[in-house]
Amino acid sequence: MRTLDWSDGTVVAIDQTRLPHEEVLLRIHDVDELVAHIRSLAIRGAMALGVAGALGVALAAVRAKESGADLDATLEDAAVKVATARPTAVNLGAGVETVMRVRRQGGSVDDLVAAALAVRDADIEANRAIGRAGAELLDGATRVLTHCNAGALAGVETGTALAVIEALHATSALDMVYVCETRPLLQGSRLTAWELQRAGIPHRVVVDSAAAGLMLRGEVDAVVVGADRIAANGDVANKVGTLGHALAARRAGIPFVVAAPEMTIDGSTATGADIPIELRDESEVLEHGGQRVAAPGSRALNPAFDVTPVDLVSAIVTERRSLTELISTPPGNAVLEAAPAITSRSES
Amino acid sequence: MRTLDWSDGTVVAIDQTRLPHEEVLLRIHDVDELVAHIRSLAIRGAMALGVAGALGVALAAVRAKESGADLDATLEDAAVKVATARPTAVNLGAGVETVMRVRRQGGSVDDLVAAALAVRDADIEANRAIGRAGAELLDGATRVLTHCNAGALAGVETGTALAVIEALHATSALDMVYVCETRPLLQGSRLTAWELQRAGIPHRVVVDSAAAGLMLRGEVDAVVVGADRIAANGDVANKVGTLGHALAARRAGIPFVVAAPEMTIDGSTATGADIPIELRDESEVLEHGGQRVAAPGSRALNPAFDVTPVDLVSAIVTERRSLTELISTPPGNAVLEAAPAITSRSES
Repeated sequence: MRTLDWSDGTVVAIDQTRLPHEEVLLRIHDVDELVAHIRSLAIRGAMALGVAGALGVALAAVRAKESGADLDATLEDAAVKVATARPTAVNLGAGVETVMRVRRQGGSVDDLVAAALAVRDADIEANRAIGRAGAELLDGATRVLTHCNAGALAGVETGTALAVIEALHATSALDMVYVCETRPLLQGSRLTAWELQRAGIPHRVVVDSAAAGLMLRGEVDAVVVGADRIAANGDVANKVGTLGHALAARRAGIPFVVAAPEMTIDGSTATGADIPIELRDESEVLEHGGQRVAAPGSRALNPAFDVTPVDLVSAIVTERRSLTELISTPPGNAVLEAAPAITSRSES
Repeated sequence: MRTLDWSDGTVVAIDQTRLPHEEVLLRIHDVDELVAHIRSLAIRGAMALGVAGALGVALAAVRAKESGADLDATLEDAAVKVATARPTAVNLGAGVETVMRVRRQGGSVDDLVAAALAVRDADIEANRAIGRAGAELLDGATRVLTHCNAGALAGVETGTALAVIEALHATSALDMVYVCETRPLLQGSRLTAWELQRAGIPHRVVVDSAAAGLMLRGEVDAVVVGADRIAANGDVANKVGTLGHALAARRAGIPFVVAAPEMTIDGSTATGADIPIELRDESEVLEHGGQRVAAPGSRALNPAFDVTPVDLVSAIVTERRSLTELISTPPGNAVLEAAPAITSRSES
């Protein structure tokens, strides 16, 4: 199942705001529509955003060709709009940049579309590789906890954290996946649970704050999450709540594994302190289904992400390598910049 | 404002399931009604449950006298029903026991009512004392984080954690109280925010999992929470999510303070591992306002509490003492049993 794709000069995507109760396929014709769908989280998840960034540039190119508009002016405008649609995810800009580079090297509209499709295909292959590597690393784990949605819906076909979980389940049946519901937008209970249900993997939804108790009571063997951006020193920005799971995993003495494509590693961001944290609308916390839940007059603060310091990360698994020595590295060291594969990261 | 009281031979209470949008006063005539309201969380919070336990026995006694039923048989039956209405809170049984003891010593129905009212009055005085002591301990803190509801609605008139916050605000204006919304039943955003709004204390509601990020980014000076049961070694059972805040507070190097009446300390429970964790209905996690939110077919696990190990607790503040040396005590030591005041805990 591809949740995001290119078809007949348009971007097609499952509307994730309508899941799990309705499966609505969006057909997106221009960049403004695409940006609106990224902002509403109809399209979301680190890798899907990388692919959406690439497809967005292709979309602008195809529309410019049809209308006879100036290609480079259109692309420059589209690149800024798409890359800045959400501030924390690095993949969005990376996907945009991969296709823009082809244009700067003199590529045609067809070349730009081909480059965008190559980003999509690389994403699919990378996710499969991440699944295999993560499952190898966590061999023997039968009870796994995850947060938010890093499954097919966050990528194109298989996801990252959920690719690891699916690969683990394929080799030795998992007894239980604890799915954190992931407030405020409930990507865990809506999306990850939906994917696990379709895959036939045993799971229970828990409130995010139940995770620490489960871990300290010895009911979890490992935590696997995705990442929205990884700083050069290994600090991990991911959906708000990830940091708390990392703290609990450390206390419980179980592995905390981050599964993410190389594209997520942002060598230009030195540490987690340099990663901007998106503040989203207060209504996501205060209302539910358009109905006010919180006390009248009370306001909210709604950070969408948090940063897990590298010393709490047992391993980062990418499509090329398993970085398992992070804990022993002094904080602040640019361990990921120093790794050899990072120099060719733009390949993905 | 008294949120739970005795009036004309009945128990009166604000229906907390209707807050913050409606203020409905319940008038409760018999023990079965009371138990139903405790189970539905219309009456909730550790101290309120202690008072409700005491008033429940008085209620049974008054009804038995009116109907001519056998007093002792009625009381024995009522005591079991009320004390076991919820499994984790120790106060419920302690409140019941305080009044039952008066009967075993030959007390009349009027004596039982007087004993129940004494539990109520002691609760009010204890909460004021806890507020004063906690504010003294956290003198200088201007940004405080709390979880669930340990305010007037959890007690009778002032609460515990919120009594500390109100006392802090009275001495040196607080800049910010971060109120964790407290999934699944949102006691934070519904009840604590409602109380802070009425008290004019600046606050923002945050999702529970945002707390760790706030603390590690240096935006919180102290965490103050209540407790549902404290084991003899100092391990603290409180609303699910409390443990995660304690782990984050430790990492951030800020105080994690538990504010609770002596009645909450259960000398007969050696450690947190001996505290039963109430599993509540899955629908609290999977549905919202009667509407299914989670993926169709997916199930939930819904523990209502977690246990914070004593080594993560900076201080326990009761109406009689501030236990601030807990961290340095080897885990497993029955530090609270050894404290002198514990021998007269049934006084409160």
